[in-house]
Amino acid sequence: MTLLKNALGLSHEYIKSAVQSGDTVVDATCGNGHDTLFLSNLVGAKGKVYGFDIQAEAIRNTRALFMRSASFQNTALISCGHEMMEQYVPAGIAAAMFNFGYLPGGDHQKATKKETSVRGVGAAAKLLRPGGLITLCIYSGGDTGFEEKEALLAFCKTLDPKQFGVLAHEFINQKNHPPMLICIEKK
Amino acid sequence: MTLLKNALGLSHEYIKSAVQSGDTVVDATCGNGHDTLFLSNLVGAKGKVYGFDIQAEAIRNTRALFMRSASFQNTALISCGHEMMEQYVPAGIAAAMFNFGYLPGGDHQKATKKETSVRGVGAAAKLLRPGGLITLCIYSGGDTGFEEKEALLAFCKTLDPKQFGVLAHEFINQKNHPPMLICIEKK
Repeated sequence: MTLLKNALGLSHEYIKSAVQSGDTVVDATCGNGHDTLFLSNLVGAKGKVYGFDIQAEAIRNTRALFMRSASFQNTALISCGHEMMEQYVPAGIAAAMFNFGYLPGGDHQKATKKETSVRGVGAAAKLLRPGGLITLCIYSGGDTGFEEKEALLAFCKTLDPKQFGVLAHEFINQKNHPPMLICIEKK
Repeated sequence: MTLLKNALGLSHEYIKSAVQSGDTVVDATCGNGHDTLFLSNLVGAKGKVYGFDIQAEAIRNTRALFMRSASFQNTALISCGHEMMEQYVPAGIAAAMFNFGYLPGGDHQKATKKETSVRGVGAAAKLLRPGGLITLCIYSGGDTGFEEKEALLAFCKTLDPKQFGVLAHEFINQKNHPPMLICIEKK
């Protein structure tokens, strides 16, 4: 077993430390639903998960995964961009997970966009309870480019250090721009 | 309790995950001995700690701390720069901790230097067993400048990704250049 997991594996470790049974949490980018299901299992029967994705295909895939594998009826799937989450989610969430880029197996042109990504993270930060955590898995290079990563980093640097801790994790000796993880913790 | 600790706190969490009772480990920069004692307690009666510091004052302070507080007779303190550690330490170590910069409470001019710092990390990487971990707490700005940080980052980027995972942690929304942590894991 390796101690230094990849960005997605690290994000799961952090989320497990931040989230307890009964909490309200957000999957800001359902994709194929794996993180949504992970969150559903973490918060359990008395918890609540709000899952967002702007692509109908992602919501369909997530719903299909839940039909096969969900243990709890605790998840609302919302066909809407994550930048609108404040319209659906009550304040006081324990965590929000963002996994940027394109839908795995989907159309690489339909990726998250820097403007809405930054607005989504800002919205999640407003909803976060003290001690709550946001994870951002950020891809770059290849089809994805670097603009979204740069915009998210720039935004995260502006978060008030009195209100938020922001820790960036980068795998600095790998080829081909491995994904990075940013954690935002509300103090 | 906050989930996102500072660089030193994070380094302790990683080291606790990598090190077991009975292991051989290195404190590459004894300073006032706090990490040396932390390692001594982790590896226990059957373990071994090699502590290095080039400053006589640091070795004295560490020895005094051990006289007051050590639970185990498992630590060798060596008045020598960490770049020489291969002359003293057998291969197969579970961990090495580096805490760069000047001796807390000591002379700010007598800080670690980029050339010997890079050679020390290279030496520790050679001694590391598979699954073993090196932590680098790196300071910058102020009296310290940025040269050592840049040199260490440049060196870490050259580590063979087939042999080593390298994860850099930076607190990106704080003022005044907070310390950063790099973890190097032997695969």
